[in-house]
Order: sequence, then structure tokens, then C-alpha cells
Amino acid sequence: MALKVAEVGGATAPAADPAVAAPARRAPMVAVDAMGGDRAPAEVVAGALLSAEAGISVLLVGQEPVLAPLLDGLDTRSLAASVELLHAGEVVAMDDDPAKSVRRKKDSSLVRCAEAVRDGRADAMVSAGNTGATMASALLRMGRIRGIARPAIVTPIPGPLPTPTLLLDVGATVDCAPEWLVQFARMGAEYARLHHGIERARIGLLSIGEEMGKGDEMRKRTYDLLSREPGFIGNVEGCDLTLGRADVVVTDGFTGNVALKTLEGGMRTVLRLAAEALGLPVGDARVGEVLEPVLGPAVAQYDPDAFGGAVLLGIDGVCVISHGASNARNIDTAIRLAAECAEAGIVHRMKEAISHHGV
Amino acid sequence: MALKVAEVGGATAPAADPAVAAPARRAPMVAVDAMGGDRAPAEVVAGALLSAEAGISVLLVGQEPVLAPLLDGLDTRSLAASVELLHAGEVVAMDDDPAKSVRRKKDSSLVRCAEAVRDGRADAMVSAGNTGATMASALLRMGRIRGIARPAIVTPIPGPLPTPTLLLDVGATVDCAPEWLVQFARMGAEYARLHHGIERARIGLLSIGEEMGKGDEMRKRTYDLLSREPGFIGNVEGCDLTLGRADVVVTDGFTGNVALKTLEGGMRTVLRLAAEALGLPVGDARVGEVLEPVLGPAVAQYDPDAFGGAVLLGIDGVCVISHGASNARNIDTAIRLAAECAEAGIVHRMKEAISHHGV
Repeated sequence: MALKVAEVGGATAPAADPAVAAPARRAPMVAVDAMGGDRAPAEVVAGALLSAEAGISVLLVGQEPVLAPLLDGLDTRSLAASVELLHAGEVVAMDDDPAKSVRRKKDSSLVRCAEAVRDGRADAMVSAGNTGATMASALLRMGRIRGIARPAIVTPIPGPLPTPTLLLDVGATVDCAPEWLVQFARMGAEYARLHHGIERARIGLLSIGEEMGKGDEMRKRTYDLLSREPGFIGNVEGCDLTLGRADVVVTDGFTGNVALKTLEGGMRTVLRLAAEALGLPVGDARVGEVLEPVLGPAVAQYDPDAFGGAVLLGIDGVCVISHGASNARNIDTAIRLAAECAEAGIVHRMKEAISHHGV
Repeated sequence: MALKVAEVGGATAPAADPAVAAPARRAPMVAVDAMGGDRAPAEVVAGALLSAEAGISVLLVGQEPVLAPLLDGLDTRSLAASVELLHAGEVVAMDDDPAKSVRRKKDSSLVRCAEAVRDGRADAMVSAGNTGATMASALLRMGRIRGIARPAIVTPIPGPLPTPTLLLDVGATVDCAPEWLVQFARMGAEYARLHHGIERARIGLLSIGEEMGKGDEMRKRTYDLLSREPGFIGNVEGCDLTLGRADVVVTDGFTGNVALKTLEGGMRTVLRLAAEALGLPVGDARVGEVLEPVLGPAVAQYDPDAFGGAVLLGIDGVCVISHGASNARNIDTAIRLAAECAEAGIVHRMKEAISHHGV
């Protein structure tokens, strides 16, 4: 294979294929943790190649001896110019301690990905590996945006409206202070503007009753703070997440993660019940075929497999966290999302929006 | 109508119909808050009559001038022996402050219901009114079981197994200490034994990852405590709630309520998507007809309308809390559940189980 294996920490610009004219605007380069995820590296590499075919430059980060054979024959697919390989000797395991692994495995594919973004070598990173370690790598190597105390993962939840409800946080910061939820609201509103063209997002606080004063102590204090934010519509409930009542719903990472996974499990249960009713094995493609005319393609939106990844907001760089079970299609979707965020200048816009609030 | 209107606070036995021979074992008497709920009193009374037809004795509590006309013609249905009326002059509104309303509206139907159970006039109570006020009434009038610091609402969630997963708490105690979750686990295990014949319940702690150490600070401390409990299987996630991985799942009332409502909303969304795909108005009965052969009756289990009510555990008396939007069928289901709990001697059994843990 004719790919140049980049040097670790090399801050040189990606090697340009002389056969391709320099574009007016360089396509974003996405660093991909090729060793992270249950199906790494094969599915991750396959996903990266799908993105490269779509014109996104990909920096595959991982053990060169393992990755190189997967890239054999790349020249014949004319992708050589879009795919680079960055060797990293170590791998963070799915069950490694997040903080420790970042401290000890300095030459891991995950840490090297974050450094590539920090050093300007890449414009964004994607990992389907250890979620905690991915967050820790991004946080420790790229740092936080000024004015943001803790990062948040934002996830779109489809509803009856053309634009989804953005739920954050869904797992980055499990123990939250009320002030942090206000920051999440501001980041969510800015994300809604950038990605969904919503000029003034309707912001809801996830609670257990619509009236002010419903919820636990943390929620009550957060409600008071959010009342001063533009677009705040008050409390929303779990059932509102799929009803499009708010553009942005804020909560702590613990509650958000439980809600998101409950929703995923519920949707999977519908498919299981359908399979049972049809006398088919669970996961049989015919279930989808029979359901398709009835439920339409919309229900597929809730299929966890359809989610490529979620963006980690509040970090001074673009980081997309992918599901551990991601297949090539999921990885491709995640890389596209990362490239989109980089092209939209999301970090810069986030910084402006936060500083605008007078931190 | 020939019903005797009972005196407030009267501790005499229910008036027996001389035409009916005294049964070997008296059927349970359920006090029903006839003024509580969005559709009260008409739907509540209609539901109570359904229960009475099934042989349950019902004590309808509320404003006699309002209720009496709804009971006209009862004699012809031979229900007079099963239905009594207890006058209560006041009504707790759906948005009344829970604690205040119990303190100030001493002659409300809700407070009188709780007193009827406390005084042995009834064996259980049901209300579809103000949830917070219902809990406060039960707590303040009946008191807690010794060894239980805070009450919990238990809700069955159907899954692939013949018995449901019991989730608690879903809203009674929103700010929880780890020790209280251990008490919830013990009550849930006892409830599983009584209602579902599960000798040794598999107990899961709702968290955001299966491994020990996942979750917020409260969950980590709870995990340590639960590790000493028989049947503890570790952390479970939101997606496990419908997968039957545990018989009992414990969490704080805030998270549990969010999870439950998220699940309800997700299931409603499936029906909406189906309606859209079929070009029918949402709520059209034909949606169910078309889905029935595909999804089977099982999905209907997740329909909030199918839930009659949830049992408030930890109280020294049986209290079933019904959905505010309950119709006659829901009220009937809730009354049957309350009667079942009373017949099973749930409070006595709960006390024994808790004292067994050496409080």
C-alpha cells in the first residue's frame, strides 16, 4: 500500500495527492480511532473508507501493522489521497479506567487522536471506544471552552417536527450543579442554531411535572437560574422527549443517559414484540419488511444502529463519540457528523455564544 | 337511592345487605376518592361500580350532593350492598400544594379516604387526584412502616418474561439517600414475592453502565450497600427495563419517573408514527386494528391507559395512586389492585420482611 505512515506528533499538513488540484477550501480532516469499538479495527476502517469515498479526509490512528493490511488495494479505489495513517502503539481497552488509561497509555490511538486535533493535524476526532476514556482524552488534551465548567454530550431525538429535540447531557457529566445545566442550555441552543437552523431554541428542563417547583432540589435551583435564559419554556417530562415540545432539553448526564437508553430499549421491545407476533426470530429482516408499510421509515430513526455518534460539547475541539457496537455505516455517519461540525466552525461559534453571555 | 350515607369518622362496620349471607371471609372494602382525577366524579364512580359488580366493596368518598345522583338506580343493579357513600365536604384540586392541602382541607375526600383506612373502616384506598397530596395524605394519616424512611411507588413494566420488571421509586421520593434505595429493594423483592410468586427477586440498580463504579456518587454508594443484599445482580441500564433482566429495579423517584414517562412517550410515538403511516388521525381506533395483527396485544401493555394505578409502598396501609386522566376502566383496575393488596395482607407482610432485616 502506498500510504504514507505519518510520524507521531507530526504537525505537517496532510500529504496532498499531486494529481488532485488543491481545493479552494480544504475538506475537513477527521482523526478516527481505528482501534476503538467492539468491531474495531475492521468495521472502523471500513466506515472510514466510506467517508473517504464521500470526499472527507480521514486520519486513521492505530497500530500500523494491524491497519496496513486492511488498507491493501486502496490505490485502486482512488482513496489514497483521502486516507492517512498515524501509528499509535497502544490501545485503550473498553473496560480500562478512563482517567488512568489517558495518563498511562500516552501512545494509545485514542490519546493520539485527541492530540491530532489539539495540534491542528486534524479538524475533528471520532471514537467508538471506551466512552469515558474518549471524554477524558478530549478533555485533557484539547481542554475546555472558557466559561464551560463541564462538557456535555448532545443527542438528537426525533419527534413529530422536522427538527429533532436535542437532549443534553446524556452521559459526560453525571453529577451536575445547576449552573452547569444553564451552560448546557446555552450550548444546546447554539447547536440547534448551527445544525438545525433554529434561531431561538425552546429550552426545557427535564423534570417530573410541568409546574415550577416540581422535581428534586437540583432541578428546583436550576429552574430559577434558567428562568433568566431566553427561550426557556419551563419543565418538560420524559414523555415530551419524543413529542417535539422543546428544541433543547437539559438534564444531568445520569438522568439523560437513563432516559436515552430507556427509549432505545422501548423501541427495541416494539420490534421484539412484532417479531414474536409474526413468529419470526428477533432481528429477522422480514420484521422490518412487514413493519415498514405500517410504521414507516420514521421508527427506524429510533434504532440505536441508526445513530452514528453524539457530539461532546464544551471541549476546545470537535469530538464525536460513537456507540461501542458501531458498524461501518455508524462510523461513516459519525465521521460525517464530525466533518460537518468542523466545517460549521462549531467550536468557534460555541466560544462566541458563551462569551456573549458575559462569563 | 337507598344507600346509607355514612357519618364522617364512623367506625361501624359496613352495612350488610340482610339478603346476602355473611361470607366466610369479608371481601375487602376499598375507599375511593370520588372527587380526585381529571374525569372525576363521573368516571371514578363508573369505575367503582364496575369493581362493585365484580364483588369488591367500595366506599365512595366525596360530596354527597354531587355523588348521590350518579348512584341513582343502583338498586336495580343489585349493587347497593357493595357500595357505600362517605360524605366529605372539600376537594383537593389537582394543582393544590400537597402538604398544605392535607393540613388545611381536613374534610377533603382525599384525607377522609386515608382516615378510613387508618381507622379500619376500609382496607385500602384509591385516588386519581393530586399525586403529591395523595402521598401526603397516606403518609400523614396512615404513617410509615417501621424501618422504612421514605415511601416508594412501584410500577410493573412488562417485558419478555411472564412476570414484569418492578420499577421503584417512580415519583414518591425524589431526593434519595443510598440507604433508602436499599429499603426500596427489600420492599420490591417482597412485592415480587407476593404479587408475582418470585421467591428470590433479582434486584438491579438503575445506572448508566453495567460495571460497578458506573453512575453518579449516590449510585456508587448505593451499589456498595446493595452488594450485601440477597438477589442483587448489579447495575442495570435504561434499556434493561423492558428486557426482563431484573425482577426489581431500584432508583430514586426523580430518575424513575423520568424513565417511566420516557417509555410511555416512546410507545405513544410508535402509535403516532403508525397513524401517520396509515394516513389516519392520531388516536383513531383503526390504528390499533391494523397494528393488532402485527404487534399483538403485548404492545398495549405499555399503553398508559392500561395502567390502573401504582402501589405506594412503605405506608402502614394500602394506597393505590391512579393516573390523573383515569377513565372508568383504569379506576376499576386500580380498585382491583388495591383489593388484591389488601387481601394478600401486603402491609403485614412488608412489615415482617423489613423487620426480618433487623431494623
